[in-house]
Amino acid sequence: MNQVGIVMGSDSDYSVMEDAIKVLKEFGVSYEVKVSSAHRTLERTLNWVSGFEGQGGKVIIAGAGMAAHLPGVVAGATTLPVIGVPIRSGALEGVDALYAIVQMPPGVPVATVGINGAKNGGLLAVQMIALSDQNLRVALKDYRVTMAEGVEAKDKALQEKLK
Amino acid sequence: MNQVGIVMGSDSDYSVMEDAIKVLKEFGVSYEVKVSSAHRTLERTLNWVSGFEGQGGKVIIAGAGMAAHLPGVVAGATTLPVIGVPIRSGALEGVDALYAIVQMPPGVPVATVGINGAKNGGLLAVQMIALSDQNLRVALKDYRVTMAEGVEAKDKALQEKLK
Amino acid sequence: MNQVGIVMGSDSDYSVMEDAIKVLKEFGVSYEVKVSSAHRTLERTLNWVSGFEGQGGKVIIAGAGMAAHLPGVVAGATTLPVIGVPIRSGALEGVDALYAIVQMPPGVPVATVGINGAKNGGLLAVQMIALSDQNLRVALKDYRVTMAEGVEAKDKALQEKLK
Amino acid sequence: MNQVGIVMGSDSDYSVMEDAIKVLKEFGVSYEVKVSSAHRTLERTLNWVSGFEGQGGKVIIAGAGMAAHLPGVVAGATTLPVIGVPIRSGALEGVDALYAIVQMPPGVPVATVGINGAKNGGLLAVQMIALSDQNLRVALKDYRVTMAEGVEAKDKALQEKLK
Amino acid sequence: MNQVGIVMGSDSDYSVMEDAIKVLKEFGVSYEVKVSSAHRTLERTLNWVSGFEGQGGKVIIAGAGMAAHLPGVVAGATTLPVIGVPIRSGALEGVDALYAIVQMPPGVPVATVGINGAKNGGLLAVQMIALSDQNLRVALKDYRVTMAEGVEAKDKALQEKLK
Amino acid sequence: MNQVGIVMGSDSDYSVMEDAIKVLKEFGVSYEVKVSSAHRTLERTLNWVSGFEGQGGKVIIAGAGMAAHLPGVVAGATTLPVIGVPIRSGALEGVDALYAIVQMPPGVPVATVGINGAKNGGLLAVQMIALSDQNLRVALKDYRVTMAEGVEAKDKALQEKLK
Amino acid sequence: MNQVGIVMGSDSDYSVMEDAIKVLKEFGVSYEVKVSSAHRTLERTLNWVSGFEGQGGKVIIAGAGMAAHLPGVVAGATTLPVIGVPIRSGALEGVDALYAIVQMPPGVPVATVGINGAKNGGLLAVQMIALSDQNLRVALKDYRVTMAEGVEAKDKALQEKLK
Amino acid sequence: MNQVGIVMGSDSDYSVMEDAIKVLKEFGVSYEVKVSSAHRTLERTLNWVSGFEGQGGKVIIAGAGMAAHLPGVVAGATTLPVIGVPIRSGALEGVDALYAIVQMPPGVPVATVGINGAKNGGLLAVQMIALSDQNLRVALKDYRVTMAEGVEAKDKALQEKLK
Repeated sequence: MNQVGIVMGSDSDYSVMEDAIKVLKEFGVSYEVKVSSAHRTLERTLNWVSGFEGQGGKVIIAGAGMAAHLPGVVAGATTLPVIGVPIRSGALEGVDALYAIVQMPPGVPVATVGINGAKNGGLLAVQMIALSDQNLRVALKDYRVTMAEGVEAKDKALQEKLK
Repeated sequence: MNQVGIVMGSDSDYSVMEDAIKVLKEFGVSYEVKVSSAHRTLERTLNWVSGFEGQGGKVIIAGAGMAAHLPGVVAGATTLPVIGVPIRSGALEGVDALYAIVQMPPGVPVATVGINGAKNGGLLAVQMIALSDQNLRVALKDYRVTMAEGVEAKDKALQEKLK
Repeated sequence: MNQVGIVMGSDSDYSVMEDAIKVLKEFGVSYEVKVSSAHRTLERTLNWVSGFEGQGGKVIIAGAGMAAHLPGVVAGATTLPVIGVPIRSGALEGVDALYAIVQMPPGVPVATVGINGAKNGGLLAVQMIALSDQNLRVALKDYRVTMAEGVEAKDKALQEKLK
Repeated sequence: MNQVGIVMGSDSDYSVMEDAIKVLKEFGVSYEVKVSSAHRTLERTLNWVSGFEGQGGKVIIAGAGMAAHLPGVVAGATTLPVIGVPIRSGALEGVDALYAIVQMPPGVPVATVGINGAKNGGLLAVQMIALSDQNLRVALKDYRVTMAEGVEAKDKALQEKLK
Repeated sequence: MNQVGIVMGSDSDYSVMEDAIKVLKEFGVSYEVKVSSAHRTLERTLNWVSGFEGQGGKVIIAGAGMAAHLPGVVAGATTLPVIGVPIRSGALEGVDALYAIVQMPPGVPVATVGINGAKNGGLLAVQMIALSDQNLRVALKDYRVTMAEGVEAKDKALQEKLK
Repeated sequence: MNQVGIVMGSDSDYSVMEDAIKVLKEFGVSYEVKVSSAHRTLERTLNWVSGFEGQGGKVIIAGAGMAAHLPGVVAGATTLPVIGVPIRSGALEGVDALYAIVQMPPGVPVATVGINGAKNGGLLAVQMIALSDQNLRVALKDYRVTMAEGVEAKDKALQEKLK
Repeated sequence: MNQVGIVMGSDSDYSVMEDAIKVLKEFGVSYEVKVSSAHRTLERTLNWVSGFEGQGGKVIIAGAGMAAHLPGVVAGATTLPVIGVPIRSGALEGVDALYAIVQMPPGVPVATVGINGAKNGGLLAVQMIALSDQNLRVALKDYRVTMAEGVEAKDKALQEKLK
Repeated sequence: MNQVGIVMGSDSDYSVMEDAIKVLKEFGVSYEVKVSSAHRTLERTLNWVSGFEGQGGKVIIAGAGMAAHLPGVVAGATTLPVIGVPIRSGALEGVDALYAIVQMPPGVPVATVGINGAKNGGLLAVQMIALSDQNLRVALKDYRVTMAEGVEAKDKALQEKLK
């Protein structure tokens, strides 16, 4: 049973969505990855969503660019929380994807992160799962401490450099 | 057998989409209207599309606002030409709907008209159907003549006013 | 113990954020509401976040307009999932708030919904809590059925009207 | 007799518009290509449109960048369906072209596709012509199947890679 | 012989374009007004441009909204200076018209003023004609003096009010 | 006596503004070029404007990027027609310059061309001067013929290539 | 001797700029108000700036809408800190003013506040003057305490309402 | 005692913020630099602000990209003037940072400069400190003279080149 399902409309989105996978690996959260389209393979996408929810999956992360319908279509097909990642691509640089993901009509929410923000998408999934997993909550607190230490280390390095 | 199917995600879109209906009536093109959502009643929407295509329907006009997925989802479910009408609503005034409709990925086109441009959506449907209907082509030419006469009449009225 | 905390920077945001409260009430999810600012009462905000997390709170919904820092600041102070609601106000009509909420740097996500999308913010919170509450999951499925029936009813009413 | 006419304002648009040509070739739809400008060679453009319609042409695809008037001017000169392709160029990256093509006033529609979306422009033309060509409709269905298989193949390749 | 020709695509633009007329009247510059469309009555528009240039006209002011092609099409049909006035209308509030007028391709310029800036359009026409009319140049200098006095009077009134 | 004055705020704008110079050279219109800033050397700029107008100059072309005040400040200091060229630079890619040039308040117009549209700026100056120079008007007509032939030649070359 | 000078291009900006005046009154900071334009009365504006600086003035607040050049032109004429207030007006709703004020070229800064943010403009002026006025620093701290109490009072009122 | 504190959320912002440091060095204004985040190390940031103000610091320059909360959070924690520098990064190229910094709610101003405008941020800090430092005021006047001479030198060089 995988806890997180990551779905993207095209394998060209993988280089961005990989950031979410890295986070899940780091936290030891089980996941599966799917390439499936809202327009070209809609039925297959719906089947995967349904199967993922049926086997006990908890959170779906969906990434898409341009007229990014995948996250919203997935959100319409499940009551699991769906996280949307707008992918930067094409002439509009991901603003089209951001609008197409975040501006969902009332009733079917998508938890949207920033453009190309797949890392935050992964962290958000971990935070949701941590609601019923005490170990993950501790791991999240540790992650924050490590981040803070990273900022401090960078500050220290800059202070050295500026001396 | 209806030639044109008009679908919208919410009955609140009707006041805009009515402009398309008026055009179809004016040209004597048969049509049907459907309220159905890409997110809330996806299966029902897909069934309607499939039924419309099966009974010999020719063109679909789909209107939606905000994260407007309906035209694209319909376009993915049929090989009939799909015309998308972005509806002006919400804080982004229809720019979100325009981007979500027109920026479709390669392979699944939506013929997009302007924001709230349902009248042009209707005319575009008539133009497509006229490709195999000589009477409609004549009617379209007449329509253009009438439009031109309207411009001339307005010019004349303004000239009078300015005297 | 309240499961959801709703925080807004100003009581003028209440008329929008009320949509989230209505959803939580409908699903019987316990909540508390707080007016507190990221700039004017930062320490008080942080104390509330810390207390809410400490007493077993699960999800925070934060609404703010213009340079909307509240959701991000709250997200930095907790590892609970934080849902951000951009409020439409001022000359930029909420686009500033959307960008200031969704474009969080890597490491501190905010689950962003659409501009004025407090209803979806409430639903997203319910979906997260439902991950460990079977009754809520059933209620969410029922909610979707009711929404679908609403669409069908509107369609039927329109068909009647068009006859 | 060519079924589709492709017109662009400058030969520098050819590298984008070529995507439409490839689609037409793939479906065996006859076409002609024209470089002609709405501003620099308006009369010549109008003559070509009139000639194309007169010889039995069915659909026109017009591509242009910046203040992209060509599709609208062509649409004003014919009652054939006109597909507009906004070309990405200049400081505004094609947003100017998109607005100048899609926001046509009531009465003269242009079926707009995404920025640089010439491939979808070609497909839309095929879909229109297929309304009265059963073989093309079958070919379009096959095309969709091939696209779906492409998604599945990419998914399979990614699953292999992730093992 | 009229020195300035004012053309607009629809009589609904008149309330804006009237500001240009007022300026021309104030400076005693002869003008004519025409309602004619780039799409609905293109040939008529071209005939008017040609006639206006032929009879010794000097400057054309063209106003249009949305996908505002009229100024550019007129500019392509004459070598007289053409001033474009983007009209505020529709969901994009005139940004579409501004882009469609100002972003002309190299070779065919349109002298663009601000959205709804018909008054400045009229002044620009006067400035151009004043290049060979010494009286107009004096009148323009006087106009500037009067404007400056207006600012001073408003300042004085405000100082009184604030006492 | 130079007929056209070209002024830019920084010598880094020269590579763009050079396009205007080339046009003026081609048409044999006399010009002078000035680097002077609206903020750093305002008095010097005003002196140059005043001197240029005094010596019989006719048209000023002003180019600037970012918060592009130069064209407007120059326009406020003369009643000669001022052409503004927004320069593409910085994070906003010239949209800031376009707005800062075209959106002038009533009373002080700037004839704005497209972003980096210095070539059109030069042509516009020639068109204005041609109002009282018959030879230039003939040259402008010839220029248009040459442009049209260029389009035809490109079309012919493409037809050859596509054979 | 007035410490703060408030200048605006038009008396129509007064209703917005009044918010700055209220703040200065509240803190007992002396000020003067001037209506003067960067384009229509440039010399008068420069004289006022020079006089204000000469008499010992410390900070200038400049408000303007559309192509808002006034703050930048003032900043170029003094080395005192200049605060710019973009005024919401016209079709672009103050985005043009924001860009025209904030995007100043290197060397001549304008301290920009939000669109219609005159209150913050006033506070910023007080903060600058407080750098050498201990009483004002205390007053600013008190102001913050009062603001915080206001938030708390609003929270309390909302809690009462929600009971 | 350092007069200016420069804080940035990430050391990746240093290459931009360095422009502010160069200016401060040039004017001999003492400064300190800090890497600290509004989200990852909020308490540390607040401590630094408090310490900087306590030791007699006068002005803070805060730089941040994307959902740039750092300047606003710092401004909420001090009554010293805070200068915000939006950093260009990510898909929105700094527009998100600009909005998130400049659109502060009433009561807590941030003196915002242009995107990547750290040099102007440094100059603004110098201008504020010069309010009570006569030597700095003289230095600022000299700086302006040198800038003006730079423009003149560039003009002269261009005149030579064009001969």
